[in-house]
Amino acid sequence: MKFNKVLKNLSTYEAGKPIELVVREYGIDPKEVVKLASNENPYGTSPKVVAKIESLAKNMYLYPDDSMFELKEALANKFDLESKNVIIGSGSDQILEFCIHAKCKKKSNVLMAKTTFAMYEIYSKQVGANVIKTESSQHNLKELSKLYKKHGADVIFLCIPNNPLGECLDKDEVYEFLKTIDKNTLVVVDGAYQEYASFKDEKKRICPKDLISKFPNAIYLGTFSKAYALGGMRVGYGLAQPEIISTFYKIRAPFNITTLSLAAAIEALKDEDFVKECIAKNFIEMKRYEEYASKKGFEYIPSYTNFITILFKDFVSKTVAQKLLERGMIVRDLTGYGLNAIRVTIGTNDQNTKLFKLLDEVLEGLK
Amino acid sequence: MKFNKVLKNLSTYEAGKPIELVVREYGIDPKEVVKLASNENPYGTSPKVVAKIESLAKNMYLYPDDSMFELKEALANKFDLESKNVIIGSGSDQILEFCIHAKCKKKSNVLMAKTTFAMYEIYSKQVGANVIKTESSQHNLKELSKLYKKHGADVIFLCIPNNPLGECLDKDEVYEFLKTIDKNTLVVVDGAYQEYASFKDEKKRICPKDLISKFPNAIYLGTFSKAYALGGMRVGYGLAQPEIISTFYKIRAPFNITTLSLAAAIEALKDEDFVKECIAKNFIEMKRYEEYASKKGFEYIPSYTNFITILFKDFVSKTVAQKLLERGMIVRDLTGYGLNAIRVTIGTNDQNTKLFKLLDEVLEGLK
Repeated sequence: MKFNKVLKNLSTYEAGKPIELVVREYGIDPKEVVKLASNENPYGTSPKVVAKIESLAKNMYLYPDDSMFELKEALANKFDLESKNVIIGSGSDQILEFCIHAKCKKKSNVLMAKTTFAMYEIYSKQVGANVIKTESSQHNLKELSKLYKKHGADVIFLCIPNNPLGECLDKDEVYEFLKTIDKNTLVVVDGAYQEYASFKDEKKRICPKDLISKFPNAIYLGTFSKAYALGGMRVGYGLAQPEIISTFYKIRAPFNITTLSLAAAIEALKDEDFVKECIAKNFIEMKRYEEYASKKGFEYIPSYTNFITILFKDFVSKTVAQKLLERGMIVRDLTGYGLNAIRVTIGTNDQNTKLFKLLDEVLEGLK
Repeated sequence: MKFNKVLKNLSTYEAGKPIELVVREYGIDPKEVVKLASNENPYGTSPKVVAKIESLAKNMYLYPDDSMFELKEALANKFDLESKNVIIGSGSDQILEFCIHAKCKKKSNVLMAKTTFAMYEIYSKQVGANVIKTESSQHNLKELSKLYKKHGADVIFLCIPNNPLGECLDKDEVYEFLKTIDKNTLVVVDGAYQEYASFKDEKKRICPKDLISKFPNAIYLGTFSKAYALGGMRVGYGLAQPEIISTFYKIRAPFNITTLSLAAAIEALKDEDFVKECIAKNFIEMKRYEEYASKKGFEYIPSYTNFITILFKDFVSKTVAQKLLERGMIVRDLTGYGLNAIRVTIGTNDQNTKLFKLLDEVLEGLK
């Protein structure tokens, strides 16, 4: 059967390996497997949200309120915006897809950093758009400006802070960059890890209301998958001017999140204390990683997220990740991103202790 | 901001009104609202599935196993196929989207019955495809053949049985039709309500394995939203030859269903007794609708699903649906589909009794 030509050379996203796979392939007791590969919140979902979902599980047969009235109201309230500024996606991933489908077609230009969230490129290529990347791995606004002047772009992706590297642009430099961008170019500010970055350093904080008021061609993306500890529930959101939101609604399929996801997200917004605690613990634990890397003489990228990227010189990251996997420790190898590095989610105190121990063991064996 | 031109004249899907909306707009106690508008399984989710999800709610922070190993194995087992024949979607809706995105682009032709599932047309128009419909509302294979000979098609949608009308093609006539279709045309057999149709009449039963073996250009779609009582969890599946499935995987976004949806679907497949009981009760209750309609002199379409379409002559369906809504009874008005009719989901015994009572009241007031 013939399919659209554009699909021929598409690659698919390589997800962090699930615990179930390690159990199946290496026969390890699921309780012994530690997953530090997908930047899930290691402290688990807020007990209040868990209790809510337990009480609502019987409603699984009912479609969700597709207007998402209550969740949109709660988000609008949180960000001092209106419901008409909000669209909900099945993860903020799905909003990325809306951005591409609304703005791009064959031969559109999409601009991004060399090493950034893989779905930007995957969605772009699905519609046959050209993906233009900077030479530098990390976000470099000078390079992005130069490429923009040369090629123009229908969409620019900025991942603030950046996944999978962890670096983070300052708000002020983002604004300076945005001033130079044509109002017809959609600039996507992916704030999936903003809760972490703005906790660590106020200069990194992007206020969605301020952003989209000053730059009506920008959209801010947020997610419940990271700090809000609902990675498995697939809820993200886009905040933008109504012109953009209403267009995206034309692309959104009905019932794009589940009944329980909707309820979980609404409940999670009521327990901000839990989120703050998790973030505070994250940065206490991250210090241990920085100390570990320094002690071992490994370079790492200072991170504004809930993960850290450790670069190797004398070891092959792919081998290191594989050896860890065989011991029930899942981390992300970044070879596919062109880096000899691993990305490790900052886990709980115990999980991190285990990671250091196993990594010591693996590296010793590879010497 | 300029968006893709194709989005300009797009319409969006009008979902059945949620209970929350009726509560908000008409101030009715949620316990008093009855929703017979979205063909949910009125008997609720299987208690075994509910118990499973209650026990797993704490896992919401974890991404699902994106390989969906266990669910694909279970479905392959159920249908005597292999995992490579299976793809999972966020509802079978999402598989419809894959069909269009894999096969269609601007000016592609997509063929369907005049009155059928609205998403076929919506997804087609999102990529700028031409939608070609039969003159008859219900599926008419002679008309479809004629249109196919005249225009050709990249995709043909067959809804068996048909939503929102309820009629159902025989397997044999579908096969005769498929013999005349070019192997490069993707034929989508949407079996969202097949569990109901094949229970009522063995002649309507489509065996996915037989279908895709005889016609490798066909894809069978199934869902957990109807008989399996998981409408709110957004899980559907496509069964086809690996050539089609592997192409669709290029389009599928990672983590397209939630952690709890995955677990719920796996568990639901283990409780087929529950499904059978619900379906048996559905057709006992449907007889009451047929009797009610006959008594009142209303025409209805004999239905192979869990809903029934009642046509009006002396009343305006839109008004009837609105008056019912104001009394806390949600049904679907089919004016938007070009019919002066309402579609009512077959509810529980009590819900149906209430519907008859309220409908009597509304019709009396409209005389």
